[in-house]
Amino acid sequence: MAKSENLLIDGRWQAAREPRWVFRAEDPTCGQEIEPAFPVCGDGDIERALHAASTAAPALAAVPPAAIAAFLDDCADRIDADRDALIALAHTETALPADTRLPGELARTTGQLRQAARAVREHAWTHPVIDTHAGLRAHYAPLAKPVLVFGPNNFPFAFNAISGSDFASAMAARNPVIAKAHPSHPATSQRLAQCVFAALEASVLPLASVQMLYHFDNDSGLWLAADPRLGAIAFTGSRHGGLALKAAADEAGIPMYAEMSSVNPVFLLPEALAHNGKALAAELFASCTMGSGQFCTNPGVVIVPAGAGGDAFSAETQRLYAAAAPNVLFSRSVRDNLVRALAQLRQAGAVVLAGGAATSGPGYYHAPTLLQVSGSHFLAHAEQLQGEAFGPSTLLIQADDVAQMVRIAAAFEGNLTGTLYRAEDGADEAAFQQIASVLRPRVGRLIANKMPTGVAVSPAMNHGGPYPSTSHSGFTAVGMPGAIRRFAALQCYDNVPEHLLPADLRDHNLPGLQRCVDGHWTDRDIDAGVEA
Amino acid sequence: MAKSENLLIDGRWQAAREPRWVFRAEDPTCGQEIEPAFPVCGDGDIERALHAASTAAPALAAVPPAAIAAFLDDCADRIDADRDALIALAHTETALPADTRLPGELARTTGQLRQAARAVREHAWTHPVIDTHAGLRAHYAPLAKPVLVFGPNNFPFAFNAISGSDFASAMAARNPVIAKAHPSHPATSQRLAQCVFAALEASVLPLASVQMLYHFDNDSGLWLAADPRLGAIAFTGSRHGGLALKAAADEAGIPMYAEMSSVNPVFLLPEALAHNGKALAAELFASCTMGSGQFCTNPGVVIVPAGAGGDAFSAETQRLYAAAAPNVLFSRSVRDNLVRALAQLRQAGAVVLAGGAATSGPGYYHAPTLLQVSGSHFLAHAEQLQGEAFGPSTLLIQADDVAQMVRIAAAFEGNLTGTLYRAEDGADEAAFQQIASVLRPRVGRLIANKMPTGVAVSPAMNHGGPYPSTSHSGFTAVGMPGAIRRFAALQCYDNVPEHLLPADLRDHNLPGLQRCVDGHWTDRDIDAGVEA
Repeated sequence: MAKSENLLIDGRWQAAREPRWVFRAEDPTCGQEIEPAFPVCGDGDIERALHAASTAAPALAAVPPAAIAAFLDDCADRIDADRDALIALAHTETALPADTRLPGELARTTGQLRQAARAVREHAWTHPVIDTHAGLRAHYAPLAKPVLVFGPNNFPFAFNAISGSDFASAMAARNPVIAKAHPSHPATSQRLAQCVFAALEASVLPLASVQMLYHFDNDSGLWLAADPRLGAIAFTGSRHGGLALKAAADEAGIPMYAEMSSVNPVFLLPEALAHNGKALAAELFASCTMGSGQFCTNPGVVIVPAGAGGDAFSAETQRLYAAAAPNVLFSRSVRDNLVRALAQLRQAGAVVLAGGAATSGPGYYHAPTLLQVSGSHFLAHAEQLQGEAFGPSTLLIQADDVAQMVRIAAAFEGNLTGTLYRAEDGADEAAFQQIASVLRPRVGRLIANKMPTGVAVSPAMNHGGPYPSTSHSGFTAVGMPGAIRRFAALQCYDNVPEHLLPADLRDHNLPGLQRCVDGHWTDRDIDAGVEA
Repeated sequence: MAKSENLLIDGRWQAAREPRWVFRAEDPTCGQEIEPAFPVCGDGDIERALHAASTAAPALAAVPPAAIAAFLDDCADRIDADRDALIALAHTETALPADTRLPGELARTTGQLRQAARAVREHAWTHPVIDTHAGLRAHYAPLAKPVLVFGPNNFPFAFNAISGSDFASAMAARNPVIAKAHPSHPATSQRLAQCVFAALEASVLPLASVQMLYHFDNDSGLWLAADPRLGAIAFTGSRHGGLALKAAADEAGIPMYAEMSSVNPVFLLPEALAHNGKALAAELFASCTMGSGQFCTNPGVVIVPAGAGGDAFSAETQRLYAAAAPNVLFSRSVRDNLVRALAQLRQAGAVVLAGGAATSGPGYYHAPTLLQVSGSHFLAHAEQLQGEAFGPSTLLIQADDVAQMVRIAAAFEGNLTGTLYRAEDGADEAAFQQIASVLRPRVGRLIANKMPTGVAVSPAMNHGGPYPSTSHSGFTAVGMPGAIRRFAALQCYDNVPEHLLPADLRDHNLPGLQRCVDGHWTDRDIDAGVEA
């Protein structure tokens, strides 16, 4: 077997013992392999990672929150300091722009780590609820088991299994992480892991708190996902892969937070189109081709009503897509999956208005693609026509009228987002309310007058949605402290003496901590006299 | 087919169309059947119930919260008014004491409905989080799909599928309920359904908001649990049944909140025993035989250290169990399952110290049973020896010392509760901390110096625990507003104009509603000038 890069297991960088095979990233612009080679782990290495993480879990759960916060901040500082090298690696592996997108994503990543640190420092995610009369105090606490994090292809920094939102959330809740990087950017993941491991070495956290595995095959993933030593799983990726892992995890009673697929329907209302059709076409095109359309919240379906406004919008959109150069994609498999998904949409009756084909090599390119169906045709084939085509692709549904747009809204399965564009003067109000009320329970985030790409890292964000866009509609993958609670257990103390309680549940409150005490949120101490 | 009682489907009481068979409750004290007969629904009736509930869901989600609160309060009032009849029915069907337990449970049930009403009125469960700078506002909202509720045998009122905590929680979140009553108390369930339906008729809620099915067979349960029209499932019952339903629900992506089995270990520390051993024996015996031990939080395992204190406790406990009269159980199946579970414990090496046998008919009685194993034997056969024996049964583990008690704590799978008795003067402090730190991640509620039976209805309660005691360690089945959030979806509004937001997310706040605005919990309005 060829030599390959070291794994991070049990607090040290070490060679894979029985790699299944080795793999290399490819430069998507030309399809050429990039050195060095990375191992595809065998089950022995995975078992060692799981054992080490499980062993570290109780010690990590007992680490003072301040040390966790310092570690997360230090990770952010080290990643910022290594910015140029990280961006260069990620650019080579993903072809994402090194001047705009990647610096922005890196800043988002370190911002996210620092938000997690702040949520830890403020204990915000523990959500203390105290009933002084009943002698009951409850909060969220570490799972005290490892969290397995699967990184996706489309955010080499912000959702990387080693530095992204799931990593930050799992570590904030004081659970060890087993990071499964995405094989399309192993060197970026390795370099992030080096930053994180340096922060770990400088901390009081157990060294086995973070394991880095670059890749393993599907069978290994399935047995690992079903191992009861795991506390939870975070996954961002395809529906096919997500559902297979979820089935394995479900059987073992392991909560899996999977963010799978979404077509993010965008409804353009009549008066918005009448006022603003051309600008909306430009906005849609920009959103759909940014990052080559490889976003979870890419606008994959847009619905316009019949009439002059809709026609003008459609014509302008078609012009923009037709005039665009091919977009470079992350990998051969992204390109092939897009080709396959578009073929399925065509087979279900969608007509290609622009683009529609991959570029013959070298590299992995596909033309921005606009497809079209009528509203009645969509309604008759809604299941097939809402399949995700991951990449720069949009299906334009030409509806007869607002009433049909309402029926189309009702035909969508769970999505991350649903968007409505309305005239600012209120002329679309009735249509907005009709469509929004139907769309609302089908989406995690309801958006007005802006495109769904762009997911702000905010406590009020919901990057989640009803099944099958995610595996549970009650949780968000972005935004602290909510995202941290996915990796926490609700724990109650009943009649436990005050001095034996965790710090955030004691009478004397921690600085800045807001707690729900006898039904009221407050940052005050509990009067010891109350609990009589 | 014999005539049987009407089902409540689609807003009216109607005959089962194709009942599989009919069944009658039995008086557990004598085993005699009680009239009338109730239908075991066929799939046609279940489909009609599901269709009606699904159709009602959007309308129910749009009902003003005040109307939901009024409905829940009215349910409570009508149940209180029907108190004597309900208690008489439940006493006949369950043999629970009509003078103590059942009045207490009824009061708990109506109190729970009123707490849910208050949580609705205060919007507390929607947990609004607002980021004025990012233009994002999020809260929990109805699933807008029906919730299927399975009632257990052991709380004919407080966990009845038609009036209990899951019912109150699902309705509070404005989701229709499909109630699957427990077949051991159909007349009690019918009478509760009559109270609830009268409240429904007096309300503005859709009449199809509540369906009542008395029974269906396992195969029907499995297809219903896998129907994607369901929003969620609440289940309280056996591990075997819960896991089978969960597997069906998981495959369809339906969250199932299952509360299954738990042995609720109780650790008695040396100094607590030295001071108080005899009183502790009485406390354990009372907790274990109350309600004939048929509680989710029954103390099924008690761990004592070697020494004079432990020996005296064990002797006194044995005396109490041996002197006790047989306890009446809910049904033939509870008795048979208890006999089977005790046989398995004996087969795994537990020795019967007292009781151990069912009474030969008539009626369903079993002697309070105390079994014993050594600490080392328990550790060698921990999986078999922590099987739940539902009923008045306790396994006494005689540990060598505190160090072995710590290892025993580490051998427990997920439980609802874990209890430690310590000396009030602090003499057990080191032992408490060692055992508690190991027990903590394995239980939902950590209790000091009182028995686990008795689950206060409080916002700070956790009636939940790690798998396999429940299906998800992040949720509680008791306590508002937490229990309501199981049946809610996280929903975010992004850039949506203020006047198109739900009432609890608008600038002008609702009376008494606490919201997290820009990181701080407050009941104040949002200054319109802030969102610039």
